[in-house]
Amino acid sequence: MLANRARCGLADGMTDDTPIASPGRSVGVVKSHDVTLGVPLRLELGGTLPSLEFRYETYGVLNATRSNAVLIPHALSGDHHVAGKYSPEDAKPGWWDAFVGPGKMVDTDKFFVIGLNCLGGCRGSTGPLSNDPQTGKPYGGDFPEITCGDIVVAQRRLVEHLGIKKLHAIVGGSKGGMQALLWAADHAEAVDRVVTLACGLRQPPQALALNAIARASILADPRYRGGHYQTGEGPEDGLAVARMVGHVSYLSPAAFEKKFARETVPGAQPSDPVYWQIESYLRHQGDAFVRRFDANTLIRITRAVDRFDLTARAKAGKLFKPDGPAILAVAFSTDGLYPPSEVKAIAAAAGSRGTYFEVETDAGHDAFLLSNESLFAQVRGFLV
Amino acid sequence: MLANRARCGLADGMTDDTPIASPGRSVGVVKSHDVTLGVPLRLELGGTLPSLEFRYETYGVLNATRSNAVLIPHALSGDHHVAGKYSPEDAKPGWWDAFVGPGKMVDTDKFFVIGLNCLGGCRGSTGPLSNDPQTGKPYGGDFPEITCGDIVVAQRRLVEHLGIKKLHAIVGGSKGGMQALLWAADHAEAVDRVVTLACGLRQPPQALALNAIARASILADPRYRGGHYQTGEGPEDGLAVARMVGHVSYLSPAAFEKKFARETVPGAQPSDPVYWQIESYLRHQGDAFVRRFDANTLIRITRAVDRFDLTARAKAGKLFKPDGPAILAVAFSTDGLYPPSEVKAIAAAAGSRGTYFEVETDAGHDAFLLSNESLFAQVRGFLV
Repeated sequence: MLANRARCGLADGMTDDTPIASPGRSVGVVKSHDVTLGVPLRLELGGTLPSLEFRYETYGVLNATRSNAVLIPHALSGDHHVAGKYSPEDAKPGWWDAFVGPGKMVDTDKFFVIGLNCLGGCRGSTGPLSNDPQTGKPYGGDFPEITCGDIVVAQRRLVEHLGIKKLHAIVGGSKGGMQALLWAADHAEAVDRVVTLACGLRQPPQALALNAIARASILADPRYRGGHYQTGEGPEDGLAVARMVGHVSYLSPAAFEKKFARETVPGAQPSDPVYWQIESYLRHQGDAFVRRFDANTLIRITRAVDRFDLTARAKAGKLFKPDGPAILAVAFSTDGLYPPSEVKAIAAAAGSRGTYFEVETDAGHDAFLLSNESLFAQVRGFLV
Repeated sequence: MLANRARCGLADGMTDDTPIASPGRSVGVVKSHDVTLGVPLRLELGGTLPSLEFRYETYGVLNATRSNAVLIPHALSGDHHVAGKYSPEDAKPGWWDAFVGPGKMVDTDKFFVIGLNCLGGCRGSTGPLSNDPQTGKPYGGDFPEITCGDIVVAQRRLVEHLGIKKLHAIVGGSKGGMQALLWAADHAEAVDRVVTLACGLRQPPQALALNAIARASILADPRYRGGHYQTGEGPEDGLAVARMVGHVSYLSPAAFEKKFARETVPGAQPSDPVYWQIESYLRHQGDAFVRRFDANTLIRITRAVDRFDLTARAKAGKLFKPDGPAILAVAFSTDGLYPPSEVKAIAAAAGSRGTYFEVETDAGHDAFLLSNESLFAQVRGFLV
């Protein structure tokens, strides 16, 4: 058994020790909002959700013409808490605090920024932890399969609920970028500019393999029980290993070298379960993840991400409309999950409305969470 | 829980569906041998094994001067069954059958080839499945920590037992290559030529991270029980996931693309635990591994491999003797575990006695198990 731990709703970010530098000012103390929209959602793969709950945050001010809204959909394990802190003493800001704020890459002096927990999530929006109205109990393992398309349809409902007919922009990294692309493809009339970071037109086979292992690890945990577990009694060990698998793909070999090399834990013995600093880091990431994430959500969301594939539509020339949103596709040179070759396919599919921008970095996939002035300048210019 | 399965001693190869082409003839029907050497082995990290059991095979004929022996140490999950079949009907030859036989890369018309299960293994040599003479029961989780150096010292004892003072060559891939390097470094007087494939002078940090996850997966399985489990009642689910983690690193992204792309399992539903062909492949690899491998061995051997690091000795110029064996270091262009940069360090450390050879391939790390005529020619030339 891994270390003893309890699952609770701590609001930590996407990764648990990402170094965050904040060149601009902070959005300050923020709070999240909850809303329930009563219109049923028919899901792409079958089934209906009778209503949609959302947890979201906003930063900046919506202008009179309601034309300055920027949506920031989160990646696999992120949430609605994009920027700011919940109190002045809060040690940890939102997961993209370095990117969003007054004078920052997404400038809250200009834009009204929306962060929301996605459909299927476990941080306040409708997902496996929500009550199934048919049974009065949490859906758990009975939560229906969802697609990235469903997630985006749900997002659009919240955006419209906030009185916004057309977004100025969507800026999303990794799974957030996939959602941004679906806005551009299927909701082109509702968005003007799209920025994707560290994603491509599809889930590549190796990324799919890693998610398959993450799911297998959860399903192998005897406490998974078909997805019907009580909070704190779920498949925490399997979920921790699943997260460890993810983390190996978030860092590049060079980043592992730089961060840990072959350092050992001081005082550790060769027969100890945790001997290497890398081992300690991965265990820590796994344990921290279990405290804030739900196994059923990880299964549903990785399946949704794995199904994401716009390549056939792109090949047929039917993905993006000629008068659709402009698209900036950002690649990170050492991203092993969504390498530059995958990102270039986005810009190619967008034709004259597409721009490709590559950030030179040795940080791997996680580079989309790290401050980078050339990236900030590029995106700022694109959002004007 | 993963699929139901039973652990037994089937003699399958290192990977379970590696395509094997055999350009030369087969060594034919072979049998394995068992021997117990009664001299205690003091281990590098402490502790003593009172005696050493070995399971081994030999192919070809030892010449009168006992100067034509070639040792083939296996990789992480391989064994003594390098080539040939156990009966004419045997569907599966040894794990390097394409490489070893009459007229093949390691030509058994010329050489006397030795394959053996390594110390710490689970296929017949002394390891966690062996009886601890102090208790009369299997060591299990009490088997001591071993190093690659211990493995090599044990190997040398078997070689000497066979009446061989000096090996003509050692040819090893991956972990087998690490052992070959330790022969060159610490037993230089006992070997004339060393060929390493798909390994470097150390376990690189990312490879270490993957092994850390494999161990965490086993330790998280409640059936691990501190390593004291009965055969068939062990941490099979954790071990299967551990193997899946390994397999992602054995293939390159291009190999995943070519082998599976984004194909789904015919008839599978989106909510099924196994939906993608990749998922099915990885599950199959995990399940097949559990039938032939022991979790305690995987823990001990991955720890031994993770500790492997000759870089400090190389940096100090003290790794290889000027009159030591010639070393051919073979890299595979898309090997993500031991990339060409790591392999070049071997040739650099060997100076004028080192040769670097890179095989262009999209198969990733597993390329060292695949037939390749340019590789065969290079190694044949080196072994003459």
